[in-house]
Amino acid sequence: MLDSTVTTRVQDVLNRLNAALEEGDVQAAAQLFATDSYWRDLVAVSWNLKTVEGPAGVADLLGAQLARTRPGDFRIQPGEMPAEDGGVITAWITFETAVGRGWGLMRLRDDRIWTLLTALQELKGFEENRGPRRPMGAEHGAQKNRLTWKERRAAEEQSLGRDTQPYAVIVGGGQGGIALGARLRQLGVPAIVLDKHERPGDQWRSRYKSLCLHDPIWYDHLPYIKFPDNWPVFTPKDKVGDWLEMYTKVMEIPYWSKSEVKKAAFDEAAGTWTVEVDRDGEAVTLHPTQLIFATGMSGKPNLPSFPGMDSFKGTIQHSSQHKGPDDWAGKKVVVIGSNNSAHDICAALWEGDADVTMVQRSSTHIVRSDSLMEIGLGALYSEEALANGITTEKADMIFASLPYRIMHEFQIPLYDRMRARDADFYAGLEKAGFDLDWGDDGSGLFMKYLRRGSGYYIDVGASQLIIDGKVKLVKGQVDRFEPDAVVLADGTRLPADLVVMATGFGSMNGWAADLISQEVADRVGKVWGLGSDTTKDPGPWEGEQRNMWKPTQVPNLWFMGGNLHQSRHYSLYLALQLKARLEGIETPVYGLQQVHHLR
Amino acid sequence: MLDSTVTTRVQDVLNRLNAALEEGDVQAAAQLFATDSYWRDLVAVSWNLKTVEGPAGVADLLGAQLARTRPGDFRIQPGEMPAEDGGVITAWITFETAVGRGWGLMRLRDDRIWTLLTALQELKGFEENRGPRRPMGAEHGAQKNRLTWKERRAAEEQSLGRDTQPYAVIVGGGQGGIALGARLRQLGVPAIVLDKHERPGDQWRSRYKSLCLHDPIWYDHLPYIKFPDNWPVFTPKDKVGDWLEMYTKVMEIPYWSKSEVKKAAFDEAAGTWTVEVDRDGEAVTLHPTQLIFATGMSGKPNLPSFPGMDSFKGTIQHSSQHKGPDDWAGKKVVVIGSNNSAHDICAALWEGDADVTMVQRSSTHIVRSDSLMEIGLGALYSEEALANGITTEKADMIFASLPYRIMHEFQIPLYDRMRARDADFYAGLEKAGFDLDWGDDGSGLFMKYLRRGSGYYIDVGASQLIIDGKVKLVKGQVDRFEPDAVVLADGTRLPADLVVMATGFGSMNGWAADLISQEVADRVGKVWGLGSDTTKDPGPWEGEQRNMWKPTQVPNLWFMGGNLHQSRHYSLYLALQLKARLEGIETPVYGLQQVHHLR
Repeated sequence: MLDSTVTTRVQDVLNRLNAALEEGDVQAAAQLFATDSYWRDLVAVSWNLKTVEGPAGVADLLGAQLARTRPGDFRIQPGEMPAEDGGVITAWITFETAVGRGWGLMRLRDDRIWTLLTALQELKGFEENRGPRRPMGAEHGAQKNRLTWKERRAAEEQSLGRDTQPYAVIVGGGQGGIALGARLRQLGVPAIVLDKHERPGDQWRSRYKSLCLHDPIWYDHLPYIKFPDNWPVFTPKDKVGDWLEMYTKVMEIPYWSKSEVKKAAFDEAAGTWTVEVDRDGEAVTLHPTQLIFATGMSGKPNLPSFPGMDSFKGTIQHSSQHKGPDDWAGKKVVVIGSNNSAHDICAALWEGDADVTMVQRSSTHIVRSDSLMEIGLGALYSEEALANGITTEKADMIFASLPYRIMHEFQIPLYDRMRARDADFYAGLEKAGFDLDWGDDGSGLFMKYLRRGSGYYIDVGASQLIIDGKVKLVKGQVDRFEPDAVVLADGTRLPADLVVMATGFGSMNGWAADLISQEVADRVGKVWGLGSDTTKDPGPWEGEQRNMWKPTQVPNLWFMGGNLHQSRHYSLYLALQLKARLEGIETPVYGLQQVHHLR
Repeated sequence: MLDSTVTTRVQDVLNRLNAALEEGDVQAAAQLFATDSYWRDLVAVSWNLKTVEGPAGVADLLGAQLARTRPGDFRIQPGEMPAEDGGVITAWITFETAVGRGWGLMRLRDDRIWTLLTALQELKGFEENRGPRRPMGAEHGAQKNRLTWKERRAAEEQSLGRDTQPYAVIVGGGQGGIALGARLRQLGVPAIVLDKHERPGDQWRSRYKSLCLHDPIWYDHLPYIKFPDNWPVFTPKDKVGDWLEMYTKVMEIPYWSKSEVKKAAFDEAAGTWTVEVDRDGEAVTLHPTQLIFATGMSGKPNLPSFPGMDSFKGTIQHSSQHKGPDDWAGKKVVVIGSNNSAHDICAALWEGDADVTMVQRSSTHIVRSDSLMEIGLGALYSEEALANGITTEKADMIFASLPYRIMHEFQIPLYDRMRARDADFYAGLEKAGFDLDWGDDGSGLFMKYLRRGSGYYIDVGASQLIIDGKVKLVKGQVDRFEPDAVVLADGTRLPADLVVMATGFGSMNGWAADLISQEVADRVGKVWGLGSDTTKDPGPWEGEQRNMWKPTQVPNLWFMGGNLHQSRHYSLYLALQLKARLEGIETPVYGLQQVHHLR
C-alpha cells in the first residue's frame, strides 16, 4: 500500500471524526469505530482513565462528555507518517479539547477505528515551562533588593507547610511520590512529598543488599531527566537510591524526609484534609486540598501470623526488613515464599554461605531475564528500539494504546516463545520439584503484574541454584513455628536460625485504613487489578487499574504508584488532574468506578 | 544543485583522499586541499590539537604522521546528506586511524577541501561502555561472596590513593576537573579529582550571590547528562553548584573534597609525580603518572598592589572573595574594573542599596545578552537550533570546524549587526562616559574570550544602571589608597568602605609555578591565547589555545579548563590522550608548540 494512500485513508477517518464531533453527532462518531474496538482515554475526554468498547461504549462516553470536554481537531501528528502492516494502519495523532491539548495513537482495520488512545498532554494556559518556554533564570535588568534563586528557595522552604499550605500532600517519597512531585513542581502546584526515611532513595537503599532493578533501564526513566547511557541495564539498588536523591534535589521537589503521617481526616466544611505529621520529632499539621497515597505497592508488608511465632528463638523478618546475607553465613535460613524477593534473597544467602531453604506455597511464574528483555520488552524498551526511533515517550504511548481487555492475546504468544526458547531451563526446574505456572491463561508476567502485582520471578540466577539443589526447595503450607524450626502442614520440620517471610504486600487502601479510617478505606475499595476474574484479581471487569492515578469514590483522595515505568507515565495524568482542580478548570468525571472488594 | 550530485562530488574527493592516504602519497593528498585551506585535527592524526594551513601545511602534517597514525577510510557519515550553500559544500564525515575512530566535518569549495575537521572519538578496543555496550549492573548467575555495587564502590574509595595509585591526578574540581573526571571514569582511567572546597559545586556557590551563568544553557551541558529542558536559560550559581555536585556523585567520579595540593614534583626515575595533598587535615602523598591542572581560568586571582593598601581602614576584596551586597547597604563601595564580574557586582550592590562607583581602567567590550544569544549563538545553541536538528554534539563540531585563523572574519559581521541593533544602548553608554571597544579588529566577544579570556561584559542589566547614573562611573588608573578612599592618577578621590578589586585572574601556569616550580612554569609558558598579536594575546601565531587540553613542553603535565562548553568538548580529547598513554598506545605528537611568554 502506498504511504500516501494510507495517509489519505487516515485523514479521511479523522475528517469524519472531527465533523461528527463538531456537529455533536455522537452516533456518527460512534459508527467510525469497529464492532470490536477500544477507546482508551487518559484524562482528555473522560477526566478519568477509562477504556470504552465498541460503538456503544464510544456513544456512551461521547454522550456524557462531548458537550462537556469538547474533543476535536484530530490530526495526523506532523512529521509522523501513518503506516500499514498486516491490515492494520497505525497513526500518531494530536487533538484538542476545550481546555487542553492531547497526543494519541490510532489503529484502523478496514478503515474503521480499532484502537484509539487519547492522552491529555497539557492544559491550555498552563503549559509547562520547558524548552522554548523555559525560565530565564537571571532576570535581566536591575531591581532593588531582589532575591536570588537560593534566597527564594530558602524562603519557600521556610514558609511551605507553615505560613503557606500546600495544595497537595503526597504520602510516600519513592519513585511514585518523586515522579508526581516533579510533575506538580513543573506545573506550579504547591505540594509536599512526605517520607519517613532519612533521605530520598532510602526506600531502595534499605532493601536486601543484592537487589537490582528487575526491569531494564530503558523502561525505568523518570520524567524530565533520563538515565545517562552509561547506566547499567539492571541498576543496583544503592545507585537507584543515589539517582532518586539527586533527582529530588535538582528538580527542586519539596520533599520532607524523616516525616511520617500519623493521621489524616477530611474536613468537609473546610474542603481540606487535616494531616498530622511527625517531622523529625516535631508535630506539624498540614491542610492540603488533595491527599495522594504514594506509599508503594510494596510498601505495606503482608505478615501472616502462624502459631508458635512468638516462641521462635531465632529471627523472623519480613522480606522488606531483610538486609542481606552478611550475618547469616553458616546459619540455617528458611525463606517462605517463591516470588522475586524470595528468589533474590535465597540466592544472596547462598552466595553468603548460609544454608537456605525456600518454602514454595503456591505455583510461581518464572521467566529468564534475557528472554523477557528480548521477547517481552525489546521492541519498545531497548537500544534497538531507540535506534528504530522508538523514544521512551513513544514506547509509553504504544504500550498504553494496547487495550487491557485484549492485551493477554498479545502477551500469550510472547510467553509461548519464551517457554520454547528456555525449554531445558523449565524442565530443570520441574525436575527439581518447582511448581511453575504461566498465569491463569498463559499470558505471563506482565499480565500478572497488572492483575495482581505478584506471583512471579524474573530469573537472574536463583533458579539455577534451585535446579542444582544449592538452594533447597520444599513445597507446602506453613503449619506452625517451633522454637527452632518452621513446621509445614505435612509435618516437614525445617530447623531455622532465621525465617524470612517473603509473603508480599497488602493493597494500598490498607494505608488509608491505617491513616484515615477503615470506613474511608472501604469506600475506596481494592487498589490495583483489572478485574480480570483470574487468581487474586477478582471481577467484575474494570478495564483499568482499580483506583490508580484517577478519581476514587472518596473525593480529594488519590493513589499513585507502580513501577518506574508507571510512575513516569501515569504521574503526568494524575498531575494534570490535580492541576486542573487547583486552577478551577471543570473536570467532569466519566464513569467513576464502582467499589469492589474491600482489601 | 541536486543533492545526489553534491554527494557524488563529496564522495569523489573522499575517494581520492583515501587513495592518496592508502598509497602514502602525501603530495596527492595535499593537492586535494585549496590554497587557502585549513585542516584542524583534534588528536586523531597529530596526537595534538593542531591546525595546518594550505597544501604545504597538510603535506607537513601527513609527512610526519601518515605512516605513524594512518588516517584513512574517510566516508560520508551514514544518514547525513552533504549540502551545498553559497558555493560551499558541507559534509559530515567519519574516518579511522590505526588505533581509533573519528568524526569530522569537511567543507569543499570548487571541489577542493577548504576546511577539514578530524576529531578522534574513540580508541579501538577501548570504546566506552555506553548504549549497547553499557554494563549489565546485575551480574546474572550466582557466585559465592560476591560484592555488591555499593561494596565495590566503598572498597575502591578506601583503596584509591592509598593502596592503589591513580594514573592521573586532576587539580581542581570545577566544571573542567569534573568533566575530565567523568570522561576518565568512563574510559577506565584511574584518576582522582582534588578540590579544596567543602563539596563539588562550591566553586560556583562561593561567588557573589547574584551570579548566574552568562552563557545560555544550550551551550553549557556537561558530557553524558544534559541539563533537563526545564532548566533556566541563565542558571543561577547555586543551582549550577547543585548540578555539579549531583553530577559528580551519579557519574561516580573519584573526587576528594577539602583536599589541597601543597606541592608537586616529577620524579624522572620513577616516571611519576609526587603530589603532596592536605586532605582535610591529613597529609596524603599521591604518585600519579599524569598531572592535570584544572584550576580554572578564573582560579588564580590577579590582585595588583597599590601604595597605601596596607593602611586602608575599610575592606579590600578580590572579586572572587566578594559575596554580594548583604553587608553593604548604605555603604560606599568602589569597584575597580569594568568586565563581567565588576558589572555584576556593581548591579547587585546597587540593588542592595550600596553607594557604588565603578572605576573603568581600560575600554570594555559590551554586548547585550539577548543580542548575543540571538545573533552570536542562536544558530548553534538554542531551542531553534535543536528544532533544526543541530544537537549539542553537532553544534560543538561545527563550532570546532571554523579555523581560528579566519574565525574573526565570521565574527565581525555578527557584531556589526549587534552594534546596529542596539545603537541606542551604545549611544547611552557613550553618553555616560563609558569607554567601549569591540576588540582590536571588531570581532567581538568570542574572539576576546579565545584570545585573552577577558575584556568584556555580557549585559544583563548593569549597563542601564551606568547609563542612568545609578552606578557611578569614573575612568582612570588607581594611583594609591588612602585610609578611607581610593585615589586615581588624576587626583579623583573616591571615599570607600569597601573596595572590590575586579582585576581578573592570572595565567594558569601560575599554578604550576606555585605548586611545582617557577622553572617548570617557565618551560610551559603562557597558557591560553591564540597568538593573534592583539591586546593581551601576543604572537607568534599558534592557531590553537596555547597549552590547553594538549601536550605541553613538560611531559606528563596538562592543562584543562575553560567555560562549560569547552569543558564538555575538549575533555574528550584530553581524556583520549591520557587513555592512550595509559594503555601504551603510541601517541606520536606532531608540532608540539614552542614556549612563548612566561606569564
